Amino acid sequence: MSEDCIFCKIIAGKIPSAKVYESEKILAFLDIGPVNKGHTLVVPKTHYETVMDTPDRELVELALAVKNISAALHTALKADGISVSQSNHRAAGQLVPHVHFHLIPRYKGDGFHHWPQGKYAEGEMERVRQDVAKFL
Amino acid sequence: MSEDCIFCKIIAGKIPSAKVYESEKILAFLDIGPVNKGHTLVVPKTHYETVMDTPDRELVELALAVKNISAALHTALKADGISVSQSNHRAAGQLVPHVHFHLIPRYKGDGFHHWPQGKYAEGEMERVRQDVAKFL
Repeated sequence: MSEDCIFCKIIAGKIPSAKVYESEKILAFLDIGPVNKGHTLVVPKTHYETVMDTPDRELVELALAVKNISAALHTALKADGISVSQSNHRAAGQLVPHVHFHLIPRYKGDGFHHWPQGKYAEGEMERVRQDVAKFL
Repeated sequence: MSEDCIFCKIIAGKIPSAKVYESEKILAFLDIGPVNKGHTLVVPKTHYETVMDTPDRELVELALAVKNISAALHTALKADGISVSQSNHRAAGQLVPHVHFHLIPRYKGDGFHHWPQGKYAEGEMERVRQDVAKFL
C-alpha cells in the first residue's frame, strides 16, 4: 500500500467505492466522474505505478477482468460498444499513479472521438520501426 | 482469416507493414496514421472482433505484449508516457473489426486530453453498480 494513493485507500476500505467486481488480487469499481454512466476502473490490489511495472501474473488477471467486465457492461447497460483505456505516467494523463484500466460504455452518437492522426515523412516510419524493434 | 479484414491481410503478408514484434500468435506494427510517432497496434494473428470475443489464452499474450512493447516504446522513443487504448464495436470508434490495442507514445504538453467527465444523480451510481455487478 502506498500511503498517499487514493486507490490504495479504496482497496483498504478507508474510502467507500461502488464495487462491481472483486477477487483476491483485483478490484473493479465505478469511476465517480464517468465519461458515460457505468464507467468502471479495474485495478490490482497491490500498488504498481504503470502497466510496465505490473508483474505478469497480475497483468494477466487484469486483462481477463477487463474482458469479463466489458461483457457485463455491454449486456447490463445495453451499450453499443466499450472503450478500454489505460494511461501510463502523467504525460499520458495518468492522474492516480496506481495502474488502472478505464472501461467506458459507449453509445452510437455519444460524441467522443479518437485523437487526430498524424503522418510520417518519407523513410521516417522505417527508422522508428528499427528504433523500437531493437528493444523487442 | 476474414477475407475483408485489412489486419488479416497484413498478418498474411498481402499488405506490407512496419513490424516491431512478432510471435506465433501476436503481431505488432506501426499505425500508418500515428497520433504520435511510434504509435503501435498489437493484434492477435487469428481474427476476433473484440476483446470480449478473444479467447483467454490469446488475450493473455496480447496483455503481456502490450506491457513489453510499451516499455520498448518508452525507452526507444524517450517517451514521457504511454497511452494504451482498445475500442470494441463501431460505437466505440472501432474502424477495423479485428481486435487491436493502440500503444501511443506520449510527451509532456503534446495536447491530447481525456474525454470530459460526467456525474451521477443522487442514488444513480448505486443502481448502475447493482445492474453491472449482477453479471459478474
